[in-house]
Amino acid sequence: MRRCVITVGDLGEFGVVARISGRLPQGPTILLGPGDDAAMVSAPDGRVVVSTDLLIEGRHFRRDWSSGYDVGRKAAAQNLADIAAMGAVPTSIVVGLGMPPTLPVSWLDELTDGFRDECALVGASVAGGDITRCDLVVIGVTALGDLQGRDPVTRSGAGPGDVVAVSGRLGYAAAGWALHEAGVSGEAFQEALEGHRRPRPPYTSGPEAAALGATAMLDVSDGLLQDLGHIAKASGVGLVLDPAAFAVGEPLLAAAKELGADPLDWVLSGGEDHSLAATFPTKDGLPAHWRVVGDVVEGEGVQVSGRVYKSGGWDHFR
Amino acid sequence: MRRCVITVGDLGEFGVVARISGRLPQGPTILLGPGDDAAMVSAPDGRVVVSTDLLIEGRHFRRDWSSGYDVGRKAAAQNLADIAAMGAVPTSIVVGLGMPPTLPVSWLDELTDGFRDECALVGASVAGGDITRCDLVVIGVTALGDLQGRDPVTRSGAGPGDVVAVSGRLGYAAAGWALHEAGVSGEAFQEALEGHRRPRPPYTSGPEAAALGATAMLDVSDGLLQDLGHIAKASGVGLVLDPAAFAVGEPLLAAAKELGADPLDWVLSGGEDHSLAATFPTKDGLPAHWRVVGDVVEGEGVQVSGRVYKSGGWDHFR
Repeated sequence: MRRCVITVGDLGEFGVVARISGRLPQGPTILLGPGDDAAMVSAPDGRVVVSTDLLIEGRHFRRDWSSGYDVGRKAAAQNLADIAAMGAVPTSIVVGLGMPPTLPVSWLDELTDGFRDECALVGASVAGGDITRCDLVVIGVTALGDLQGRDPVTRSGAGPGDVVAVSGRLGYAAAGWALHEAGVSGEAFQEALEGHRRPRPPYTSGPEAAALGATAMLDVSDGLLQDLGHIAKASGVGLVLDPAAFAVGEPLLAAAKELGADPLDWVLSGGEDHSLAATFPTKDGLPAHWRVVGDVVEGEGVQVSGRVYKSGGWDHFR
Repeated sequence: MRRCVITVGDLGEFGVVARISGRLPQGPTILLGPGDDAAMVSAPDGRVVVSTDLLIEGRHFRRDWSSGYDVGRKAAAQNLADIAAMGAVPTSIVVGLGMPPTLPVSWLDELTDGFRDECALVGASVAGGDITRCDLVVIGVTALGDLQGRDPVTRSGAGPGDVVAVSGRLGYAAAGWALHEAGVSGEAFQEALEGHRRPRPPYTSGPEAAALGATAMLDVSDGLLQDLGHIAKASGVGLVLDPAAFAVGEPLLAAAKELGADPLDWVLSGGEDHSLAATFPTKDGLPAHWRVVGDVVEGEGVQVSGRVYKSGGWDHFR
């Protein structure tokens, strides 16, 4: 009987490598692309910024909720956002890919295209990778970036008197996850549903923030309160947020109404949006897409409406 | 009842991160280490060499054969060897680590120490990483390196008249695997057994070969014949090997006798030793640890004793 689905096992290792490489254009930052022991990437600054993440099927994505293309976009995005969060410009990613022989080649093609297209948003390319057999789909992405002569923006530079600002969407990935989990679909929920499958990090806001003098920055991967808690701890300061300062978009309001949820919970605690949060010496001169949501004060933890959030969760009422 | 084994699940995510970081010294190439969105590594050459590999428990290592320390050494070694094979000096690795909550912390400590010690051999450090939960131990290692102003040595530069030379051990990993699989142990077999668990790439031979004018180079990860086949194909040449030129060490002879195997098969076809194979314009002036084993000729494939090996296996008799 003829099978209708061509699988990774049908192609074999070298066939898979050739197929992936054939779908990946190499931009100007790639001095030597896939096919040798290692790739070579430009690092004009003389320092290279590097971040790695491991995504496991069933834990970080589900093949029944997300297409290969969505997974590729998301896997690249979460690493490219880490580079941007240092104030750097991403140059490349390398990808380690474990997959079962039964994986359809069409899914692999979509995944590859997802990597390619997310990288293209920032002028980066897939420089190389490694494939191996695994019962689950496992994706290891490492991103490299260039600081263009600027100092990196770490988590430890926030000082009392600074303002806290965010660029990009918050709460969409969490709302999307909740909608997926509840089995809700429909036109009104598309943007939130897609928010889970495909984050939209505001990449250019990272180098921009560095140039604007950001004192601390990170990308929101685990939820704004938890992540800002890292800045508070690393900088030895407290952060006071104004819940009224957050924009709660129409898609979140619709999803919250459908599910009987509080959309501000998604905004403050939802992870995986990979937006950027930063502190600046002043709000004067910040572009409008850097929404000021709070202040840096002496003390510790992150306060919202009088409650203090510390690492590990809400600490206590004050 | 009190448990005697402390597990990764007992420590929790932040406990594990702190424990790993606490065991990892940061050398001079690391400008910003673990703890931020990304690490920052020196890249004085203005170009960075990068290679990534994914290791899956049960496929690339077995916890009953290899200690955590062995796995850490090997996972680092195979990536650092890729960097050396370009003629570059490794500067750092980043590690993505998936593990079950039941994993003993002692195993994680050993793994970390293995990464640390293998990196220390070349003056590199672990710059950062990512941990996540996974039913299997999954390790994604990405290594970075610096070319020190030299051109990278790729697979495509070999030309007729060049000689083929190898640096480092061949066949030990394959012999060790065969001994492990046969359940053979004992003092006489220790070196071969350890050859599987812990390769010894000749790291300094990589930059040395570049300085000596190597025209092509790679590390032997899949077996000498298969890997040299990549040089033959990429360079558009044939390689003729002299089987009598290979040193077959005493540990291989002992293992072969015990198992009734041909030790030259391990030398020519065994993978995972991560030694270096290169082509040079002449054998004159090569240090003794670069053992000349053959010649580059016009044609294709890799010939040994009149047989031609092409990618995918032995092609035919001539």
